[in-house]
Amino acid sequence: MWFGNPEGAMQYFEDYALGQRYGSARRRRVEAAEIRDFAAEYDPQPFHLDDDAARGSMFGGLAASGWHTAAMTMSLIVGSEFRPAGGILGFGGELQWLKPVRPGDELHVESEVIELRESRSRPDQGLVKMRVTTLNQHDEPVQTFTPTLLVQKRFG
Amino acid sequence: MWFGNPEGAMQYFEDYALGQRYGSARRRRVEAAEIRDFAAEYDPQPFHLDDDAARGSMFGGLAASGWHTAAMTMSLIVGSEFRPAGGILGFGGELQWLKPVRPGDELHVESEVIELRESRSRPDQGLVKMRVTTLNQHDEPVQTFTPTLLVQKRFG
Repeated sequence: MWFGNPEGAMQYFEDYALGQRYGSARRRRVEAAEIRDFAAEYDPQPFHLDDDAARGSMFGGLAASGWHTAAMTMSLIVGSEFRPAGGILGFGGELQWLKPVRPGDELHVESEVIELRESRSRPDQGLVKMRVTTLNQHDEPVQTFTPTLLVQKRFG
Repeated sequence: MWFGNPEGAMQYFEDYALGQRYGSARRRRVEAAEIRDFAAEYDPQPFHLDDDAARGSMFGGLAASGWHTAAMTMSLIVGSEFRPAGGILGFGGELQWLKPVRPGDELHVESEVIELRESRSRPDQGLVKMRVTTLNQHDEPVQTFTPTLLVQKRFG
């Protein structure tokens, strides 16, 4: 968890530059049981719950809820080398699901800084827009997200 | 769960019209323990995990992960009166978090059809774009999402 990292490892708005990239050191293996558990609680549709029903669906087999993919992506970002001071605080962004995520897939994340702006309302903070791409073990993108994050300035 | 509903209750692309609105009959109460459990698994940042740390953060108190809010929103849509045949299958959309979601909040969802298009690649399906607004018990929007969904045609 990032809050266990020493203060020196934190990044401030001034530390980011366009085009900087951050990888998730870890990979996250997608388990069928976790796909079903997440779906049962948050997205109880048959193609996320049941192998047989999923085979007859658009997915052609059990697939993770897109929200589960998004949540697993977040778990890979938290704890990665992208480590803004004050935490990862997003206003949202454009979210796209590109390919089904299946049991046995191993996800990792690549993030890139695509926009840097001053905050008009908060002089001690800046806005960092990222492109966060979630990839499977074949390096196929399964999801993209372009969040705008609020990041503290070092000298706010 | 929508797949328990009779076939007759399903909606096809032809059944949707611009401006149609769908509410979630249910409300979902946000529990502090669930905020922490979700965060521990998917978004382990202190303001989602710990009351004391959260008080000193931008949130000023324990707040749900945005991904948890998104997942709870999905749970309110599945099982609502919005019930496309073949299930709720989205390509993604613009996601915005507007206000913190707190323990004790009660969420509900209002959805509106904002765009209808034929699918160029799939003649038996159409694209339905929705604006999905998640509101708390004070009717304050806490999240908006504008997904594009793939919906079966009745006569594909």
